[in-house]
Amino acid sequence: MSLLLISNSGTPFLEQCKPEITAFLRRHGARRLAFVTAANLHDEVTYWQRAREALEPPAPAGCDVEVLHLRWNHDPMPTLQHADALFIGGGNTYALLKRLREAGLLEPIGVRVRAGLPYLGSSAGANVAGPTILTTNDWNVVGLENFRALGLVPFNINPHYLETDPAMAQHSETRDERIREYHVVWQNPVVGIEEGTWLRVEDGRATIAGRGRVKLFTRDREPRWLGAGEAFDLA
Amino acid sequence: MSLLLISNSGTPFLEQCKPEITAFLRRHGARRLAFVTAANLHDEVTYWQRAREALEPPAPAGCDVEVLHLRWNHDPMPTLQHADALFIGGGNTYALLKRLREAGLLEPIGVRVRAGLPYLGSSAGANVAGPTILTTNDWNVVGLENFRALGLVPFNINPHYLETDPAMAQHSETRDERIREYHVVWQNPVVGIEEGTWLRVEDGRATIAGRGRVKLFTRDREPRWLGAGEAFDLA
Repeated sequence: MSLLLISNSGTPFLEQCKPEITAFLRRHGARRLAFVTAANLHDEVTYWQRAREALEPPAPAGCDVEVLHLRWNHDPMPTLQHADALFIGGGNTYALLKRLREAGLLEPIGVRVRAGLPYLGSSAGANVAGPTILTTNDWNVVGLENFRALGLVPFNINPHYLETDPAMAQHSETRDERIREYHVVWQNPVVGIEEGTWLRVEDGRATIAGRGRVKLFTRDREPRWLGAGEAFDLA
Repeated sequence: MSLLLISNSGTPFLEQCKPEITAFLRRHGARRLAFVTAANLHDEVTYWQRAREALEPPAPAGCDVEVLHLRWNHDPMPTLQHADALFIGGGNTYALLKRLREAGLLEPIGVRVRAGLPYLGSSAGANVAGPTILTTNDWNVVGLENFRALGLVPFNINPHYLETDPAMAQHSETRDERIREYHVVWQNPVVGIEEGTWLRVEDGRATIAGRGRVKLFTRDREPRWLGAGEAFDLA
């Protein structure tokens, strides 16, 4: 398996990690990238166009790849079969997982990625690579009732990780307090990924890259910071 | 029905709204307040003691009321029956709703409050007064699958509401964007309640009080600010 799990919102779209995406796709000889827009609750076609504009131009402006639109509700299987890499874009994580499940896409995506299809996921698209999505920052605006996700990695993800969030109200829970609450109930590690930072998951290890850091939360242990170039084992 | 729906975290506990709580309880002649600690995932007894210390002393230091501990998992029904007012405290909203449902408390609480039992809810305890809890700021760390709440009011609540400065919040969704996503799926209004602010719900109207404001989000309309002393109809 080869995964790139990205925490990189803001504009320009994916700006921070284009060189890494280009290198990742080239290493796998990928020419046709299926872009999944199901996390977007407002306008999926515009979102796909945004991805095309960012990723199709030759490097270094883009990533030199054809961007196919994988629409969860419009004949997605041929697009998935035709692609030689998959990118699940960000948006609302609950909407994304609900739609992937309703479209019957979770299993075929899991099968292909486990067989070697390069997987890129940004924000919500990184969250669904974990066992569950219960450490997303999003609201469950779709009322999703089943939180099991692709389970490509054994840890949960918290993208856009911040030790304290300026968007929070005074006195409200920090991310660390939320993750501590999560660990009252669940056993698996949680990986907070700062902005502009990503994990490259290959050969049973996750390696940190980008401008920020990653904070690894293991139940009943002190959390641990990892910077670019450092790695941890998945097992 | 008489409800006080409070957005007031931080220390000292409930400091901002003690005079209002005292007046509310006195108006109903309430002497025994059942305090529900089920939203707390860490130490419910300590939480109840904190509520006692804040609410039991004579006014104005406290609210001059006996505070009973209503434990969801320890014989809650006699406590509910013995109380003449109910206070559901804050914490994790998903844990709270899950425990109230598992304990079979949703229906008896709903019946008693609809029959006139004064209801006070802070943060998570305010959220569960709405039709669903899907506009809480909390994470669903307990994996709750059924989001229907008490439905005492027809609107959803977002406590600790902040209109975020987009320059401050690193690209992450503002509350308004999250509520806009909610309204892609759901019809009912959402009421954002700023810190130190609360709604008094009586006679089919909600009246704003406290030091902050309330922002009323109605689907397909511009949101509307309301300040202390202003009111809106529930219908």
